[in-house]
Amino acid sequence: MRRYVFGIDIGGTTIKCGLFEEDGLVVEQWELDTRTDDGGRYILPDTGASILAKMAELGIKREDVVGVGIGVPGPVKADGTVAMAVNLGWGFTDIAGELSAYTNLEVKAGNDANVAALGEMWKGGGQGYTDLIMVTLGTGVGGGIIVNGQIVTGAHGAGGEIGHGRIDMDEREACNCGTCGCLEQTTSATGIVKLADGELVASDEASLLRDTKVSAKSVFEAYGQGDALAKRVVERFAETLGNALAIYCCVADPGVIVIGGGVSKAGTVLIDLIKKYFVRDAFSACKDTKLELAQLGNAAGIYGAAKLMLDA
Amino acid sequence: MRRYVFGIDIGGTTIKCGLFEEDGLVVEQWELDTRTDDGGRYILPDTGASILAKMAELGIKREDVVGVGIGVPGPVKADGTVAMAVNLGWGFTDIAGELSAYTNLEVKAGNDANVAALGEMWKGGGQGYTDLIMVTLGTGVGGGIIVNGQIVTGAHGAGGEIGHGRIDMDEREACNCGTCGCLEQTTSATGIVKLADGELVASDEASLLRDTKVSAKSVFEAYGQGDALAKRVVERFAETLGNALAIYCCVADPGVIVIGGGVSKAGTVLIDLIKKYFVRDAFSACKDTKLELAQLGNAAGIYGAAKLMLDA
Repeated sequence: MRRYVFGIDIGGTTIKCGLFEEDGLVVEQWELDTRTDDGGRYILPDTGASILAKMAELGIKREDVVGVGIGVPGPVKADGTVAMAVNLGWGFTDIAGELSAYTNLEVKAGNDANVAALGEMWKGGGQGYTDLIMVTLGTGVGGGIIVNGQIVTGAHGAGGEIGHGRIDMDEREACNCGTCGCLEQTTSATGIVKLADGELVASDEASLLRDTKVSAKSVFEAYGQGDALAKRVVERFAETLGNALAIYCCVADPGVIVIGGGVSKAGTVLIDLIKKYFVRDAFSACKDTKLELAQLGNAAGIYGAAKLMLDA
Repeated sequence: MRRYVFGIDIGGTTIKCGLFEEDGLVVEQWELDTRTDDGGRYILPDTGASILAKMAELGIKREDVVGVGIGVPGPVKADGTVAMAVNLGWGFTDIAGELSAYTNLEVKAGNDANVAALGEMWKGGGQGYTDLIMVTLGTGVGGGIIVNGQIVTGAHGAGGEIGHGRIDMDEREACNCGTCGCLEQTTSATGIVKLADGELVASDEASLLRDTKVSAKSVFEAYGQGDALAKRVVERFAETLGNALAIYCCVADPGVIVIGGGVSKAGTVLIDLIKKYFVRDAFSACKDTKLELAQLGNAAGIYGAAKLMLDA
């Protein structure tokens, strides 16, 4: 008898849904709009209804479903509740309790970034490892830590908030979080653009970046074409990230660091750049820690949510 | 029927031994010399013989003993083996297997710093918490991380090697580990002396430290008497440590940070100093993380070793 599990990833715009077999085979993958109006009160009913509709459509019985894993953008406690999830309009929400009531299925909830890390460990860039740091380089810098196969949630739900390590003591501009010098101020897509803008303003030096809209992508493209200004930006980015990851490794000591998010589309060149500084700064025992690109893209969340439920 | 557990802490000079009841009550506490000659081959037989002698002395039967927990100065793998423990003269040693063979008791082995963290969580400064960072400020800076009540061993046995985060990018002298700028270069007892020596050489400024042998203790004493030079040293120490702990918290997000080792004898003034910078630099959700002094001193290891066995 086949057994199934649902993996749900709730974002501010869409709800990504996946139906998996227990070994991780995707049966179906679909999306819903996220209705954030009225304090996000429709999100869990919409999700529940969609799960039940999918089961009816495919003739799947309740006893053949292990349960539902769900990732949300907020700090989820061990009991499946969240105090607040701003992007969804939520105040206190008993995610596991509510969704379980709608579906009559067991539900396990986690933070979306942590859940994505679990997904990459299960079926992505971290396969074969039990200890992993995932870093997501997007508009901000997110992360997830897995120790002994388990998500590090932390005492305040801030486990894996690695974008907010205060790495750069010279930074004078404030991060969104209020501190100055957080990792994400230099190593997010936004941070890379800020570094490039700073270099462009500081001199009249010729650069390919003067003829283009500056983005993390255009910076890496200019770097690939030998642009000296872009090279300085990319090296600064890589040094800051490599140093931070080396520091993080002497806490969690993972077997692999998985790098995802929009900036990671720069590909293996990115890994090589970061590795140079990581190896320079890492504790001797950790220097051979693997650095890998994420492989699941936006689907990491549904994979990880499914795995969260399977591990429960 | 009372049940017992042994907690053993093997150091380079002495083997500390404890016999505990399951609730952590100490029945007896004693020490042996560590015989490191002949590649440390007598250490585990000596330990085993002492355990059996204690059981005979007190009339404790084998079936009343849960087992033996043991901490050693080296990276211990999950299977109870260590590849090398330099201070004991050991190459590869199957600690758990050997000691179990000598005693016919179940044995669980761990790294001494990690085990001490577990001890402080069980019966010391971290009581009531399940997520903890312990930092030991001695000749070097050691540490242990507990997540969900479990020691973070790490993929290379380097979990909790928090003295070797490269925090200070301006440091030009090499750490014992080979990198420049490790946390322990500034925040160990040795590091504090180095900072003070630097300040004393840099000027002729009057200071109480000029009339005394400089030690971490004398620096904190001079600070307590309002000495300006000592104040700069202490603030530099506290800022570096507070910043590092804030960074570490966005990985592990503990409920409490326990501070032990010789330097912690400075007392609550130390906690207040570190907290000032920790709160400045910590991620918003982590700012209320508790900072506590360690309470068990040198006995943390035997408590933690006993707990390691009880949790197995």
